[in-house]
Amino acid sequence: MNRKLSLNELERMSLEDYQKEEKLPIRVILENVRSLSNVGSVFRTCDAFKVDRLILTGITGKPPHREIQRTALGAAESVSWAHVDALDESITEAKAEGYSVYAIEQSTDSIPLHELTFSGKGLCLIFGNEVDGVSQDTIDKCDGVVEIPQSGTKHSLNVSVAAGAVLWEVYKSFL
Amino acid sequence: MNRKLSLNELERMSLEDYQKEEKLPIRVILENVRSLSNVGSVFRTCDAFKVDRLILTGITGKPPHREIQRTALGAAESVSWAHVDALDESITEAKAEGYSVYAIEQSTDSIPLHELTFSGKGLCLIFGNEVDGVSQDTIDKCDGVVEIPQSGTKHSLNVSVAAGAVLWEVYKSFL
Repeated sequence: MNRKLSLNELERMSLEDYQKEEKLPIRVILENVRSLSNVGSVFRTCDAFKVDRLILTGITGKPPHREIQRTALGAAESVSWAHVDALDESITEAKAEGYSVYAIEQSTDSIPLHELTFSGKGLCLIFGNEVDGVSQDTIDKCDGVVEIPQSGTKHSLNVSVAAGAVLWEVYKSFL
Repeated sequence: MNRKLSLNELERMSLEDYQKEEKLPIRVILENVRSLSNVGSVFRTCDAFKVDRLILTGITGKPPHREIQRTALGAAESVSWAHVDALDESITEAKAEGYSVYAIEQSTDSIPLHELTFSGKGLCLIFGNEVDGVSQDTIDKCDGVVEIPQSGTKHSLNVSVAAGAVLWEVYKSFL
């Protein structure tokens, strides 16, 4: 008998407890993500997988915004986030903290997602614009590129779906 | 040097070749998914991970629809799909074909996603409504429930993000 859990049984943390809780050494940077509903969805995923910080860069929209709230469902309050115009500083900062920095892209020397090993103090993962992906300039500043292997006619996933698959893969290594 | 691949280098299959190609024994059922952009996004993920069929049930919208197309980006043409009013038949059919049928939910006896093992001829995965999830009636007809382990204040992911994480986990076992 598989009985669905009620909301009360989910052992969801209160906002206050969550904010005090130690997060996982996983950082997410969004580069020029245009869709506010994608931004909100990534907030929600970062809440679920205990990401330590979400950094919104360039044209990426930031809270408070109704469109973000519609998909974030409160996660813009629980997840620690910042908005910076240029992401170079965020990469430098993450590296200084001992994080390995990876762009999620399809490139000549990318590592397939299932072969990504957790090394260093933490992982900083950069997801790019819906059409253009992560810029070559940003890739050049990263420690490497991680690619989600896929078949199909598109060879591309929605950015919030890609973030879900990658963050799940990384989160899992802490279980 | 990690050079971003151009569209031409992605070795994307043509629509015609993709339709002829043998798919993986992974089937997806959406139960009463309300958002057309979620439906479109799931189409795109099913294209990427070679899902054999996507079954839209109940109030779940179906192509052709501009809102689905906006996030499916053509995957409604490449992915084999059907719309049925009642999903009971789809479950019976999948079981008759040797597929193990799992609801993605949080329940008393759920299997954590990373412990899901591929058994039988294939896997049929049911994702539910944005607010209500998969119904208890449907869960009662499944072989089991798979849960995405997560922390956080929400204990819930956007349905298209959840589908991305689950389908990546299953697709990976074929790599």
